[in-house]
Amino acid sequence: MVTRMTQLKVAFAQIDCLVGDIPGNVDKVIEAAETAKTKYNADLVIFPELTLTGYPPEDLLLRASLQVRVEKALERILYTVKDIALVIGFPWREQGKLFNCAAFIDGGEIKAKYRKKCLPNYQVFDEKRYFEPGSDTVVLPWRGFNLGVSICEDVWEEEPIAATAAAGADFIVNINASPYDIAKLQQRRTLVQSRAVTNSVPILYVNMIGGQDELIFDGGSFAVNRHGRVCFSAPQFEEGIFLLELNDVIHGEGQETAEPAPTMAVEASIYKALVTGVRDYVNKNRFKSVVIGLSGGIDSAVTLAVAVDAIGADRVRAVMMPFRYTSQMSLEDAEAEAKALGVQYEVVPIEPIYDQFMGALNPLFAGLDRDTTEENIQARIRGVILMGISNKTGALVLTTGNKSEMAVGYATLYGDMAGGYDVLKDVFKTMVFRLAWYRNTLSPVIPERVITRPPSAELAPDQKDEDSLPPYEILDEILSLYVEHDVSADGIVAKGFDKETVYRVVRLVDINEYKRRQAPIGARITMRGFGRDRRYPITSGWKLGE
Amino acid sequence: MVTRMTQLKVAFAQIDCLVGDIPGNVDKVIEAAETAKTKYNADLVIFPELTLTGYPPEDLLLRASLQVRVEKALERILYTVKDIALVIGFPWREQGKLFNCAAFIDGGEIKAKYRKKCLPNYQVFDEKRYFEPGSDTVVLPWRGFNLGVSICEDVWEEEPIAATAAAGADFIVNINASPYDIAKLQQRRTLVQSRAVTNSVPILYVNMIGGQDELIFDGGSFAVNRHGRVCFSAPQFEEGIFLLELNDVIHGEGQETAEPAPTMAVEASIYKALVTGVRDYVNKNRFKSVVIGLSGGIDSAVTLAVAVDAIGADRVRAVMMPFRYTSQMSLEDAEAEAKALGVQYEVVPIEPIYDQFMGALNPLFAGLDRDTTEENIQARIRGVILMGISNKTGALVLTTGNKSEMAVGYATLYGDMAGGYDVLKDVFKTMVFRLAWYRNTLSPVIPERVITRPPSAELAPDQKDEDSLPPYEILDEILSLYVEHDVSADGIVAKGFDKETVYRVVRLVDINEYKRRQAPIGARITMRGFGRDRRYPITSGWKLGE
Repeated sequence: MVTRMTQLKVAFAQIDCLVGDIPGNVDKVIEAAETAKTKYNADLVIFPELTLTGYPPEDLLLRASLQVRVEKALERILYTVKDIALVIGFPWREQGKLFNCAAFIDGGEIKAKYRKKCLPNYQVFDEKRYFEPGSDTVVLPWRGFNLGVSICEDVWEEEPIAATAAAGADFIVNINASPYDIAKLQQRRTLVQSRAVTNSVPILYVNMIGGQDELIFDGGSFAVNRHGRVCFSAPQFEEGIFLLELNDVIHGEGQETAEPAPTMAVEASIYKALVTGVRDYVNKNRFKSVVIGLSGGIDSAVTLAVAVDAIGADRVRAVMMPFRYTSQMSLEDAEAEAKALGVQYEVVPIEPIYDQFMGALNPLFAGLDRDTTEENIQARIRGVILMGISNKTGALVLTTGNKSEMAVGYATLYGDMAGGYDVLKDVFKTMVFRLAWYRNTLSPVIPERVITRPPSAELAPDQKDEDSLPPYEILDEILSLYVEHDVSADGIVAKGFDKETVYRVVRLVDINEYKRRQAPIGARITMRGFGRDRRYPITSGWKLGE
Repeated sequence: MVTRMTQLKVAFAQIDCLVGDIPGNVDKVIEAAETAKTKYNADLVIFPELTLTGYPPEDLLLRASLQVRVEKALERILYTVKDIALVIGFPWREQGKLFNCAAFIDGGEIKAKYRKKCLPNYQVFDEKRYFEPGSDTVVLPWRGFNLGVSICEDVWEEEPIAATAAAGADFIVNINASPYDIAKLQQRRTLVQSRAVTNSVPILYVNMIGGQDELIFDGGSFAVNRHGRVCFSAPQFEEGIFLLELNDVIHGEGQETAEPAPTMAVEASIYKALVTGVRDYVNKNRFKSVVIGLSGGIDSAVTLAVAVDAIGADRVRAVMMPFRYTSQMSLEDAEAEAKALGVQYEVVPIEPIYDQFMGALNPLFAGLDRDTTEENIQARIRGVILMGISNKTGALVLTTGNKSEMAVGYATLYGDMAGGYDVLKDVFKTMVFRLAWYRNTLSPVIPERVITRPPSAELAPDQKDEDSLPPYEILDEILSLYVEHDVSADGIVAKGFDKETVYRVVRLVDINEYKRRQAPIGARITMRGFGRDRRYPITSGWKLGE
């Protein structure tokens, strides 16, 4: 028996499940199980949380036929996969209650069903909208070991792992749909290490991969032995089947076994997350191509590079739409970027359209001063042109607004905000610069002066962003404190920032909720993105200050 | 004692609390308490759920200074209001947990604090994102009676009222922030009647009033005696203090006491809800005025009427933006509506702007057929013009898309969908017709042929909505079944609808999630609006059918 035990292999199926596509996800499960068996000779293949529906299925979980669909899916898996054991996740309704379940399947039979105990209902999560919490621990014998099962959030609280270990588990499979953010990989590892040590039990952590609307699942599956040693890790941002020798985990010591894959530099990690987001949004929604308005500025330059890296230059089209305030430098740089990346490039001047708009509006604007209205009209003309190309060709418009702009409303609704997916939505401007430098280390595609020149929207003569906003180094720090860390305006001032600046910035964040509510979605890469993560009322009498 | 008891008066403070404005809401509480005492000689004044923060405060509940702000607010109330008892609602943090609380205050002291037991986390509600459930029943002696307290959802489940009655309550004050929908008033009454009878206890149900983003609180507070008799009811859609003789409720029989206010016809009720929504969105967000694109069609006609009824003709501006496909009839009718309602009216032809756009785009469109792209450009030019007026004058753009259009995506993003608030967002087209007839019974403002002509977007020659959509009678029935009642496509077909039509409609609903995600908010008037109520992924592989 001992000999047999030492040879057990576990395949981590770090796969990309398409939300709602239950039959398609079953195909993926069956394919992964066959690969795990035939190619790797694995004994057990473990899949991410809610494998069959993808994550998060949102209100699809409320559709009446969900249970029938899941039952059919399970039947097909039980009938097809007989020579390898599986742990898979799915929603399951019984006695009128819906549970977030994991099943341990062996020999074509469901041996045990585990119901997730801890339901996250914070940040981007709404699991209490759908699920009831489970209460039973699952530990069952398998090939001479006691296998325990838990699901995602269960490992973030104490009870489930403690109870499973107490019930005699030799190792615990924890299946996850844990979305990426900058700090998440380290957070997961530290947490799971601590649980493993506290309960002296190895934990196998398998995570989903792929972009789903604003969420990016980064994979990065890993295993920790009872001493808290990460003794196996799968790559981030890479779909695949990754093999673990169970013996290494169960019998491993604190110091032995292979080194885990090194964690990436933050710029590389974010860049890969953005690429994943674009690629999956475009492909899963079956867009053949994308179109981007190039301005010669850094946001559209980085957006273009991400798009090309995500889906290839032949599926990307760039349009420069100059106006009287567009500098020669911008025209040159936009063209240089497009050429360097090898995308289709067109120039559509907007001057004649602008003149017609102003001719129509001047009688209505009589006696009123020139203000940002005229700037917004330029941005909106560009939006109409890009959307025209989108409607005519089926290309998705990618927008280029960064997190700093989305925060303070430095963007035009129906103008530069017009499009289906905002690549940099959760990336502060200071990080956009770092991403540009990083991308150029791979191959020089962004002209250096795009990175070094002072940012400008070029919507008015000699305009600079810093005419209306604090320097981005300051702005982004204030925004990070307020938006991502919930520090109040007075709390930020107490950290040494200028009071007037802080109050102005915080007020801009507060009053621009209406813009963000109509903004395109974009990849979440921080612990607090604008989207499901941050739910503020538009109508609000909250006074800033303490 | 009996003599004293028979004279007790309870004031229902059916007030409009502005979300987040804690000091302002305290002012309202103090004012209402003073009015209740001095004008009505009331002994107790009861306020809606989360009186101090308004409802729903959403992520404002997560701000660090919330507790300090609430404590200050309570101090001010305790210090100021001494000669009348109160029941008010507020969030309260203790031992690291946030509760949705109601306090009974008497003589400037908090006599008891009740923590909401049942936290709704479905439909538009997210209370489990913020609150922990309470577990204690509150019944306390007051002027010879035992007064029980409960909060909103507590009355929708069995335990809280049963426990409070079992603890000896002579009557229960249930404080609410219950949002309006067409069927809600009757539902609330039937439910509370049943709870009162089952537990043989009178229930005083006080509700909030006013619009908060997409939610409309309709008031309609009422009281039910132990026999299930509605023996008091405050009007819907009217802010105010309404007085109840407690004796009538506590000693009332099944048949006695005054008739409750009659419930309104559905058209009148919806119309009032829409007016409330517009009025409060505009005023609470401090817009001085609104601007509406008038097309000569029924949606913009009804929108205009609602806007004028909400904030007055002097704050409403209408703009007709004709194109070559705009009929003479539309021009005449738009002008007639504007005149009948007395609003500022302008005509801005879009032909020259359109020609410039097409001139710019034609080289890019070479060899491609004419399609809806050209129609969308017309709609988007109108959007740019309205937004220009909005930016220049500070007027809010009201959009006019109805629920049928929002469902199937029969609307142009950044075109007719450009604006801050969509008045008819949750109103099916067939109901828009009924609202038009209803509004004309008050005073004839919508030309009859606007109601009787076949609906057309007038974006192409001789276009009719029914060229691309099923007749609205059929469309709306299918949409109601699919969107509001979660019936599957096959389930709808089984009810006798044409399969091809059903599949086409359901598919349109599914694939247009991306449009709705960028749509302006609008008043929710049904049990399933597009908004907080219906949370579907954009990226989805769900197959329609069963």
